[in-house]
Amino acid sequence: MKKMENILDKVKFDENGLVVSIVQDIKGEILMVAYMNREAIEETLRTGKMHYYSRSRKKLWMKGEKSGNCQFVKEIYIDCDGDALLFKVEQKLGACHEGYYTCFFRKLENGEFKIVKEKVFEPKEVYK
Amino acid sequence: MKKMENILDKVKFDENGLVVSIVQDIKGEILMVAYMNREAIEETLRTGKMHYYSRSRKKLWMKGEKSGNCQFVKEIYIDCDGDALLFKVEQKLGACHEGYYTCFFRKLENGEFKIVKEKVFEPKEVYK
Repeated sequence: MKKMENILDKVKFDENGLVVSIVQDIKGEILMVAYMNREAIEETLRTGKMHYYSRSRKKLWMKGEKSGNCQFVKEIYIDCDGDALLFKVEQKLGACHEGYYTCFFRKLENGEFKIVKEKVFEPKEVYK
Repeated sequence: MKKMENILDKVKFDENGLVVSIVQDIKGEILMVAYMNREAIEETLRTGKMHYYSRSRKKLWMKGEKSGNCQFVKEIYIDCDGDALLFKVEQKLGACHEGYYTCFFRKLENGEFKIVKEKVFEPKEVYK
């Protein structure tokens, strides 16, 4: 598909074939950061749901494939250097496997990171 | 300084001693993504101005050291895994060396990345 090639041609993948992606709630809150390879971008564009490449598990995964907490793509941006992507999404329930809406639930206060968000679901097991 | 150690102990640096950092305008707009090493975090905390590690130039740099377009730190968050940081800042003039307020000035529309932001300054030279 020509359009897919146009998009992927603009992305500068690193030496491991990955690009860093920021995921932001369409209303403005940062949800998470993850890495994508070529296939993850293709699947994200094809399905409209965020897919990533897990560096630890060395495989493609869809956000919510186990938890059901999918991310539906609304807007996509690329940075000036082409080596970072920004996805604005609608997040189902919560992005963090620890039960928070955002993975950035700890804030630096008086020299320590403190939990400043409420859990939105109770994680029953460790899943992504 | 004990507090500095508390903070740095929570950060999981990668095999190159780096951690990815998202920089967000305190009002909500994503400005850029960059990498920090231990020293960049220390200098950022010490001065209140964003410092990064340049992977291409292999050195520490302060945002705005040439352009004057500094970023003043307002809030700092860490993600669940400790391998990503989020800095909320006040951005002077614009973050992007191409003259835009944000580095994410190109948006995917009808299969192509199109410039969707206005320049806020005219870059006279290539600087960071």
